[in-house]
Amino acid sequence: MKAMTSTEFEQNLQRLAEVAVHSGLGLAPGQELVITATLDAVPLARCITKYAYKAGACLVTTLFTDEDSSLLRFRHGSDASFDAAPSWLYEGMAQAYRSGAARLAIAGNNPSLLSREDPDKVSRVNRATSRAYRPALELIVRHEINWTIVACATPAWAKCVFPDLPQDEAMARLWSAIFAASRADQPDPVTAWKEHDAKLHARADYLNEKRYAGLHFRGPGTDLRVGLADDHLWLGGGTTAHNGRYCIPNMPTEEVFTTPHKDRVEGRVTSTKPLSYQGTLIEGISVRFEAGRIVDAGASRGSEVLQKMIETDEGARQLGEVALVPHSSPIAASGLLFMNTLFDENAACHIALGQAYSTCLKDGDSLTPDQLAARGANTSLIHVDWMIGSNKIDVDGITATGESSPLIRAGEWA
Amino acid sequence: MKAMTSTEFEQNLQRLAEVAVHSGLGLAPGQELVITATLDAVPLARCITKYAYKAGACLVTTLFTDEDSSLLRFRHGSDASFDAAPSWLYEGMAQAYRSGAARLAIAGNNPSLLSREDPDKVSRVNRATSRAYRPALELIVRHEINWTIVACATPAWAKCVFPDLPQDEAMARLWSAIFAASRADQPDPVTAWKEHDAKLHARADYLNEKRYAGLHFRGPGTDLRVGLADDHLWLGGGTTAHNGRYCIPNMPTEEVFTTPHKDRVEGRVTSTKPLSYQGTLIEGISVRFEAGRIVDAGASRGSEVLQKMIETDEGARQLGEVALVPHSSPIAASGLLFMNTLFDENAACHIALGQAYSTCLKDGDSLTPDQLAARGANTSLIHVDWMIGSNKIDVDGITATGESSPLIRAGEWA
Repeated sequence: MKAMTSTEFEQNLQRLAEVAVHSGLGLAPGQELVITATLDAVPLARCITKYAYKAGACLVTTLFTDEDSSLLRFRHGSDASFDAAPSWLYEGMAQAYRSGAARLAIAGNNPSLLSREDPDKVSRVNRATSRAYRPALELIVRHEINWTIVACATPAWAKCVFPDLPQDEAMARLWSAIFAASRADQPDPVTAWKEHDAKLHARADYLNEKRYAGLHFRGPGTDLRVGLADDHLWLGGGTTAHNGRYCIPNMPTEEVFTTPHKDRVEGRVTSTKPLSYQGTLIEGISVRFEAGRIVDAGASRGSEVLQKMIETDEGARQLGEVALVPHSSPIAASGLLFMNTLFDENAACHIALGQAYSTCLKDGDSLTPDQLAARGANTSLIHVDWMIGSNKIDVDGITATGESSPLIRAGEWA
Repeated sequence: MKAMTSTEFEQNLQRLAEVAVHSGLGLAPGQELVITATLDAVPLARCITKYAYKAGACLVTTLFTDEDSSLLRFRHGSDASFDAAPSWLYEGMAQAYRSGAARLAIAGNNPSLLSREDPDKVSRVNRATSRAYRPALELIVRHEINWTIVACATPAWAKCVFPDLPQDEAMARLWSAIFAASRADQPDPVTAWKEHDAKLHARADYLNEKRYAGLHFRGPGTDLRVGLADDHLWLGGGTTAHNGRYCIPNMPTEEVFTTPHKDRVEGRVTSTKPLSYQGTLIEGISVRFEAGRIVDAGASRGSEVLQKMIETDEGARQLGEVALVPHSSPIAASGLLFMNTLFDENAACHIALGQAYSTCLKDGDSLTPDQLAARGANTSLIHVDWMIGSNKIDVDGITATGESSPLIRAGEWA
């Protein structure tokens, strides 16, 4: 790999910010923008702020999180502190979205921030946070507003991905991977995203025409049948939010995905990449589903955190998403384990435990919670993706009459 | 001045954080805390977070402001952007206070951040921000909750105070001044604050017994009669908030202060120190009051910003506070111009244009807006202190029957 000069780096950073605002967010002139970021992402946050104002933003506000301060609660907080969450702040964010603000999250958290903390306390904090965040999150997952997530290399993240490299080199390599996956290293990232987005839409359209009733995953440690929700929709790439703005919610994105039927999942599945869940690495996950629910769960590492996760609530042990990604995706091709869902979920087929996206159902946004549940859409405080794809996995589409046809063979589209 | 070693600095920083939480804030075990700070104050914010958790805080959330991002609005924002403010965030903060959270502000902003920006745009941003912030500010000024402000040295602030020193030295000198004024350089800051607080209360008690109807300030360029509000109260030092917590809202504080009668101010007054108002320095202010209102205003520097300020609303040209500070205050004795109200207002007698404190009236918090106005308390979106004291100023107390007695002579208590 050729090292970036500082001029190249600066140019790529500017292009990442620009493509995030224009292709990712589709920010409207006059629209307000709320950014969330850790303190390590200050330079990228400023860069995005600049392009947002240039695109006509009426106001840009960044909410910074200090990961060191988050740790202080675990060091010095009283027992009661682990059930507390800043509801007023999340409600404020929800209010911003209701008033028309767009939302851009900068991902780059330390994947192992909480890995040495008491899993019980971690789980309590996550549950309290998820509950407080729910009103804001619902506006996001229902696509009431335009939103996107982009990534920023940070020292702690780079160290997780490249544990054996010196910090400077690790940061440079992670930035290179981010720029490549986000197409910010291309001369015209906006056009590159337009072409990529069209391909993802074509793939989703093909699957929507087929109207499969289910999918069958087979590979080492995996023999899983995933029923799809009634009137499910496959989605991929960008989407038009209910405020009329076209946005590409994840940068990068390589997946097509839909809503499984929460009660029609059967069999065993084994993870193919480690899952970084709220600061803890969970590896070698193997779970068995019966009638949609996990009845048996284990992991070679972090199994206690996995148990806490699936005990978050009733829906935490049922599926809310299934996604297909070819093994030749540029992110898989990088050969890296990013320990960040935004990247790793775009390197392999995956499933998510927890909350389903109502947008993955026909007219899903106009359905009541009862109607959504009747179609098979799951409800939960969590939505956690984990990877089950590899170059050893086969996927079949199963029709309502039980006929199967190959979709993916040895990790690639058949 | 002896240079601090890094160990001494670290010890002082810890003591500043500790005294801020215990003496300044009076944080209750189990109470939530909201901190506001600029990005330069991250180390102090973390230190305060630590002591807050140690004191039993149930949750500490810091809202960081990035001054560079604030400038980006002025560089690249559309015209409409200058009337926008994040109401959702301020409303969220108000909600936190209503739910029982305490509030700690870390002061350390760049005094000249906006000094090169268009005064009209600065004024529009300030007005929009003041309006959005009002619900939260009211809870603070009414002392519904315990709150405090402490200072943090920052490179931009240090450069304003010590423009001729190298940055390291300027930072070290500003930190020394902050630690001294905040009594964090003393072995037992909590006890030192207890003693100082008792002295301020004794001074306020004396003035409350006297029940003056007004004050008469005389000095170079100043001959000002300030009527006091009916049933005014002199306050100084700490106060018991309505949530029952005893807090010292400003660290440092050297003043005793009360509410003037908004319609009973007559004569001319000249500022004795520059005023740093939202990023602009205003120097050599000279204004004339008739029947409480400024009828003539000028400044040797920044007069345009001064004009914009007093045009904010109807109450912006009337007084909301008058405060007495001896010229021998430790902050005046430092001989420094801090260009930060938290410090400079504790170096000299001062007045404030704009909003009055209802707490400076007998039973003020139970009065309606009309009742407050009838007593003479002013209302405005702004509350801007500026210094009118020096070692050349005399102040008399004037009784209801017109008798005058000396309060301050040549800047010192008579």
